[in-house]
Amino acid sequence: MEKIKIGIVGYGNLGKGVEKNVKSFEDIELVAIFTRRNPNEIKSRNKVVNIEGILNWKEKVDIMVLCGGSSQDVPKQAPEIIKYFNTVDSFDTHLKIPEYLEKLDIIAKQNKKTAIIAAGWDPGLFSIGRLYFESILPKGKTNTFWGPGVSQGHSEAIRKIEGVEDGIEYTIPKEKAIIEAKTKIKEISQKEKHLRRCYVLPKIGANKEEVEKKIKEMPYYFSEYDTEVIFVEAKEMKKIKSMKHAGTVIRNGKTCSHKHRLELKLELESNPEFTANILLAYTRAAFRLYNEKNYGAKTVFDVPPYMLSNKDRLHIIEQTM
Amino acid sequence: MEKIKIGIVGYGNLGKGVEKNVKSFEDIELVAIFTRRNPNEIKSRNKVVNIEGILNWKEKVDIMVLCGGSSQDVPKQAPEIIKYFNTVDSFDTHLKIPEYLEKLDIIAKQNKKTAIIAAGWDPGLFSIGRLYFESILPKGKTNTFWGPGVSQGHSEAIRKIEGVEDGIEYTIPKEKAIIEAKTKIKEISQKEKHLRRCYVLPKIGANKEEVEKKIKEMPYYFSEYDTEVIFVEAKEMKKIKSMKHAGTVIRNGKTCSHKHRLELKLELESNPEFTANILLAYTRAAFRLYNEKNYGAKTVFDVPPYMLSNKDRLHIIEQTM
Repeated sequence: MEKIKIGIVGYGNLGKGVEKNVKSFEDIELVAIFTRRNPNEIKSRNKVVNIEGILNWKEKVDIMVLCGGSSQDVPKQAPEIIKYFNTVDSFDTHLKIPEYLEKLDIIAKQNKKTAIIAAGWDPGLFSIGRLYFESILPKGKTNTFWGPGVSQGHSEAIRKIEGVEDGIEYTIPKEKAIIEAKTKIKEISQKEKHLRRCYVLPKIGANKEEVEKKIKEMPYYFSEYDTEVIFVEAKEMKKIKSMKHAGTVIRNGKTCSHKHRLELKLELESNPEFTANILLAYTRAAFRLYNEKNYGAKTVFDVPPYMLSNKDRLHIIEQTM
Repeated sequence: MEKIKIGIVGYGNLGKGVEKNVKSFEDIELVAIFTRRNPNEIKSRNKVVNIEGILNWKEKVDIMVLCGGSSQDVPKQAPEIIKYFNTVDSFDTHLKIPEYLEKLDIIAKQNKKTAIIAAGWDPGLFSIGRLYFESILPKGKTNTFWGPGVSQGHSEAIRKIEGVEDGIEYTIPKEKAIIEAKTKIKEISQKEKHLRRCYVLPKIGANKEEVEKKIKEMPYYFSEYDTEVIFVEAKEMKKIKSMKHAGTVIRNGKTCSHKHRLELKLELESNPEFTANILLAYTRAAFRLYNEKNYGAKTVFDVPPYMLSNKDRLHIIEQTM
């Protein structure tokens, strides 16, 4: 059987994850990696191409896996790339998903291409969990907990502060809130659910009090949370940096006369490697939708579960049902 | 907006659950309950009709929710009912699903009707969990644990034994096996995973040793398991009877260089009431598939997640993604 041919756009942690993990997906083949950097400067066993030359690959790539950042890269690249290629991405700026989806949908349909967006673990796998849970148990409340794990966005926010040499933010779920989510039918606030612990390597001569104040008062990122700031030395900082992450979706609810609890939980040693795997599974779905002439931009909600598997329907029904 | 009109076929615990829970599903309306018994003998606030008259309801019911038993009722009723009505069911005899699906699919397509089968929690919600998990993390092993909770099939098997007045079987997951499933990438045998604890009320004068031996040696049901037999009195038996159930799907696996763990877990105070809710959510999906002229017999693997919700697509994307 012919394999699904993919290209990787963006060669950071996520792109490298897709490159390394693709071997576990027997039906998928990596054709080339596309980067804005000079391809000669990149070490890889695979073909690396400057992104300027991407149109030469129109006949050679079935699906482009977009691995750039959600804040800048993906929303700019996707509307261009979708004109010529099918795509999957893990765009994760929750608030901007509707706008991004609509924009991409129009271009994809005009060009008879298929995109699957926001296919990471949250948004993505956790979104699916929340949707199944709330659809099945309409009388109830869902709480999502993230961590313990590093938030890239919050870490970047710390590093932009004056006087900060390096910084890492760990999102840590509060045990008390988890117990509440499991036992009460209640929506718990972000502040009650998560602690934000910031490890900061200050610049030489920086005013630590000032740095701590600036972090804790930063709107949206930290001001609404219980935020801890811990100053560390360079050696410690290295140890603290981690790709680990975790999370839980808990729905506690009731039917007419009884209570029920549903949970979806994950513990990841490497956030980008796991996200890479989700993208690879959704690559199959994008390929299938495209072959069914089901064009446009889709979310994980639109994709029937069987499309993520490389096994045939009867096999799945016999072995996994 | 017009509601989806349902009929309930079979008025046992599951059918009663659907009847009571339907109020939580704003877009679904119960029209009638169909039973083999004399309708006059059944207490219900809703219209109760003898199943012989079901064809008079062809224009009045969109979806028939099949709530009979999996061993006898559903496989006999569904191939008849699907000729005239769309159906959903929670058929749970794993081994017979492919055969049942194929048979129903042919009749459904001939009659331009839609069926969704095996939509309970296992098979059903847990099947979906297993499929997502194995598709996303192909290098890994999945273990499903059931309980602590009562298995209806095993309880019935006990009650059929000579000398048994009443009996209940609790399936109990073994703590050691759960820890193994979470920490090792290993498929664990049923025997290692589950303990079968049987509470037996013996008939007066019954030979207890003989009863215990017969239970423990019963092939398929008990002989391959660690089985405990506990004799109890009638008063105790009443207390032991329970609708509670629970279960966990655990997949432990790895990407190229890191380990990851995924879990789907539920704890139910009432197994039939929760299963009823799943059937009601899939009622929406069956209704939508039918309206799209997507006829035939489907499984939960074929249904995109958004079809379970009564909210519109943009709302789900904004609120749940």
